[in-house]
Amino acid sequence: MIEARPLSVAVAGLGTVGAEVVRLVQAEASLHAQRSGRRLQVVAVSARDRAKDRGVDLDDIEWYGDAVEMARAAPAEAVIELIGGADGVARAVCREAIDAGRHLVTANKALLAHHGADLVWAAEAKSVALGYEAAVAGGIPAVKGLREGLAANRLTRVVGILNGTCNHILTGMREGGRDFAAELAEAQARGYAEADPTMDVDGLDAAHKLVLLAQLAFNGAIAFEGVHVEGIRGLSLTDIAYAEELGYRIKLLGLAERRDAGISLRVHPCMVPRQLPIASVEGVLNAVVAYGHEVGEVMMVGRGAGAGPTASAVVADLLDIARGSRVPPLGAPAGRLPPLVPVPIGERQGAYYLRLMVMDRPGVIAEIAARMRDHDISLEGFIQRARSPDLAVPVVMTTHETNESAMQAALGEIAALPVVLEAPVLVRIETLDP
Amino acid sequence: MIEARPLSVAVAGLGTVGAEVVRLVQAEASLHAQRSGRRLQVVAVSARDRAKDRGVDLDDIEWYGDAVEMARAAPAEAVIELIGGADGVARAVCREAIDAGRHLVTANKALLAHHGADLVWAAEAKSVALGYEAAVAGGIPAVKGLREGLAANRLTRVVGILNGTCNHILTGMREGGRDFAAELAEAQARGYAEADPTMDVDGLDAAHKLVLLAQLAFNGAIAFEGVHVEGIRGLSLTDIAYAEELGYRIKLLGLAERRDAGISLRVHPCMVPRQLPIASVEGVLNAVVAYGHEVGEVMMVGRGAGAGPTASAVVADLLDIARGSRVPPLGAPAGRLPPLVPVPIGERQGAYYLRLMVMDRPGVIAEIAARMRDHDISLEGFIQRARSPDLAVPVVMTTHETNESAMQAALGEIAALPVVLEAPVLVRIETLDP
Repeated sequence: MIEARPLSVAVAGLGTVGAEVVRLVQAEASLHAQRSGRRLQVVAVSARDRAKDRGVDLDDIEWYGDAVEMARAAPAEAVIELIGGADGVARAVCREAIDAGRHLVTANKALLAHHGADLVWAAEAKSVALGYEAAVAGGIPAVKGLREGLAANRLTRVVGILNGTCNHILTGMREGGRDFAAELAEAQARGYAEADPTMDVDGLDAAHKLVLLAQLAFNGAIAFEGVHVEGIRGLSLTDIAYAEELGYRIKLLGLAERRDAGISLRVHPCMVPRQLPIASVEGVLNAVVAYGHEVGEVMMVGRGAGAGPTASAVVADLLDIARGSRVPPLGAPAGRLPPLVPVPIGERQGAYYLRLMVMDRPGVIAEIAARMRDHDISLEGFIQRARSPDLAVPVVMTTHETNESAMQAALGEIAALPVVLEAPVLVRIETLDP
Repeated sequence: MIEARPLSVAVAGLGTVGAEVVRLVQAEASLHAQRSGRRLQVVAVSARDRAKDRGVDLDDIEWYGDAVEMARAAPAEAVIELIGGADGVARAVCREAIDAGRHLVTANKALLAHHGADLVWAAEAKSVALGYEAAVAGGIPAVKGLREGLAANRLTRVVGILNGTCNHILTGMREGGRDFAAELAEAQARGYAEADPTMDVDGLDAAHKLVLLAQLAFNGAIAFEGVHVEGIRGLSLTDIAYAEELGYRIKLLGLAERRDAGISLRVHPCMVPRQLPIASVEGVLNAVVAYGHEVGEVMMVGRGAGAGPTASAVVADLLDIARGSRVPPLGAPAGRLPPLVPVPIGERQGAYYLRLMVMDRPGVIAEIAARMRDHDISLEGFIQRARSPDLAVPVVMTTHETNESAMQAALGEIAALPVVLEAPVLVRIETLDP
């Protein structure tokens, strides 16, 4: 049976995603009604420019110039927030919608990573849904997969390729032999990267998503400040080529792992063994790999951004609401969730790739190796191929498993050596063993 | 809040999966209660041999010698059927449980592929859940992913590596250079294949799962008889090696595709381009790839069998029941679902790999090529490397896109030629373009 009463929806923000959500809800009304038991209906929208043609029919939809006012007053059961930004209007819309007793669906990872706990508490207090499938890995049903599909498991680790822009740039560097700046420019020209690429290439966007995944996986509240974040700006074609030679592929990964002391949360470039399935996730694709104590490893791959994939996830959340499904946003009621203690990056144990540009002269290697030895770091491999006496040549070292603090201490001393001519490049090697 | 009233569960069948379900429910009671709001409790079990030590504590659990009687009479809200088999006791247990108004969770793909429609109707009539996440691709949350995660999408195709035994054998043949019989024996020795491997290696198990995926994807009822099924017995190391040379990898795929005329449903060995992510899903892993009109391609990878992954999926279904989530088993109420029309394999359009063992003598190739031409089949490539005058040599041909009926007609004539010394091997090439 299809209920006569439709699920009325107000959409805040009519960029490409907002317009696509309206279009999808209208175009697939009967399919969605068949699947959820209720018809979805967009009854109100809000955006800045009313005159703009967005290619969707807004005729019978109430227009609000003020999104917060819409969230407060529109005759809608659910509000979709697609404005973006960690604060300001987006945050006010979300609070207002929940306070007015409406279900909230948002794609806003920055907002949730910084102020998610407040919103979750408020939503639970009001008994409304807070859907954010679109905020993590776009069209991949990662939130549902972790929260419900793997709910029987204690999860020990979640790893993801969580930023399509970075993955596209890294794939392009490897395949096309163009450097970071050229690939970034190309990604910007194709609309895969923003004019200001900071959020993407410096790892912040991936870190926002990692916080959301980690909260689901470990059922606790995580402070964004606990995430160690590095981006991909420092990587050169030389490093990409050495990675291939060593049997690795460089990926910007988000890693959340349960340790005895707490939760380790990191976003940084990693070398992963090339034969691992996650290594072949290329271009704009995202991936989420969860490790459950019962199920083993489960990987989900798909498009992490774009109007279609994001709208797919937003409407999936609406269909859950229409069906009456109510799962706590963080996988368990937030009132009972302990804050999770972040483990500092200094406690990482693992192997490292280190590339230096050094003066090609006798004794240089001995000098560097001595610094590693002083910190009990054992070398696994060593490559110095080019020979250009008294000029800069690359030297690549890989280490056996060691400790991050020791590595950083050695690195500081090595970087300060007069024979080391550029800032060293350090890439952590992640074998992702179960 | 955790409800005082636990979700009481009766388990029919205490093989490795059944015992693991009991163990998991007992070991993670508080985690599961936190996530679902109710404590799970196994109150009754049934199996043949009461004396057997299964490594789990059955002390406070009621024992039934008769599983059907348990389904009828045990004081349980939910019954888990883990007996297996398309008919007989398993079917009776499922019917009895539903008729008694209990929720049903089953891992029984054969039963659901053959008699699923009856059970779905009965479950909907009684307003009880019918969970079968464990019946498709084991620990991968594929049912949930398609039915809920991608619910906003019209799905156009679902492709899967749905049988871990076959994938393990094919991976082993390629990596280890042992033939089918040797790999099968090894898989049997390691417990990855049954003593009677028919269900696995002849493609029937994959076909059962494909029916369940297709019903979810296309929201209709599918008759098992509409699936074209071929297994992997006919593949040789020669074919595996040629596939590599041609840039492909051989996988036993299940493919369900929406066509104008109906739904194409096939299980057979395929050559897939080696760079596709699904090509790198190796060993006992399963994969499900769904193509949505809005989201694009989404792939899920994980373990498709084994006690842990199967128990993970069974308990995920129990947690959904505990939370009160109710999604129609087929993604939409069965009463409104039309039967789906299968498209015969003869209507497949695509490319083919054909390997023949022929007498190495002048004119043989011309004779074969003429048969292809007579059926309007255009050759894309041709390999004959070994030369052994008047002995059998392999000849490999790949075709451009053509029609299955034409290909089968040509193949019949070619197989009957006196110079063709063994049964030809035909493998469909699937490029899986979006």
